[in-house]
Amino acid sequence: MKIKRTEDVPLAEVTMEGAAGCKVRWLVGEADQAPNFAMRQFELEPGGHTPRHFHPYEHEIYVLAGEGAIVDGDEVRPLRPGDVVIVSPDDVHQFRNTGRTPFKMLCLIPNSAAGKNVTVVPECGLEPVRQ
Amino acid sequence: MKIKRTEDVPLAEVTMEGAAGCKVRWLVGEADQAPNFAMRQFELEPGGHTPRHFHPYEHEIYVLAGEGAIVDGDEVRPLRPGDVVIVSPDDVHQFRNTGRTPFKMLCLIPNSAAGKNVTVVPECGLEPVRQ
Repeated sequence: MKIKRTEDVPLAEVTMEGAAGCKVRWLVGEADQAPNFAMRQFELEPGGHTPRHFHPYEHEIYVLAGEGAIVDGDEVRPLRPGDVVIVSPDDVHQFRNTGRTPFKMLCLIPNSAAGKNVTVVPECGLEPVRQ
Repeated sequence: MKIKRTEDVPLAEVTMEGAAGCKVRWLVGEADQAPNFAMRQFELEPGGHTPRHFHPYEHEIYVLAGEGAIVDGDEVRPLRPGDVVIVSPDDVHQFRNTGRTPFKMLCLIPNSAAGKNVTVVPECGLEPVRQ
């Protein structure tokens, strides 16, 4: 058994193409050798966002704090603390902070995601999104 | 993609032997057909606890609210919001609310847990635990 405090886990900038103002803590990561899935906490600063992308594995999301939204295909759907999102494999998605405070969420992925291809959708693809 | 609000997911009493004052919401459950793992939110009332038990699959825990503790073998370890626990397969464990408000946590399990044997440790086994 292992217990960690969130604040003791390093907070790293997400440098993936298409991300802005986005940091991550790997709360349960490769070094923990958990058998099946990993737990990450993402923090988006106001105006920040994850890449708009898709990949062949799912996300299970739990929103912890702040005001945000998820781009679901060509739709923007609001998110608030306590919301749960199941992003299915190959769903195009992007998380955004739409508020004035940090937007925090847990995002879990299967271990089988390691090394899988992630396809970033160009930012110009965001223009027709309904706000 | 599916979005749910926690409060829209039914909160059910946990009736497993050894549980007291313990409720659960299956935020991502069998009906969601998520490929690899399930997300539950547990709520323990003051004085409430989960069974003291073990099973051949892991838990990944994130503490959301309240004051609690986990019984880790013969030790009681405190838990507070933001704490993460990795319970490895076959670790004996029990969660307790040690505060005066609801203790809430996410507890994720692999889909492979379905139908696996859970062994409840008798409550008399709690007596020698150091408080």
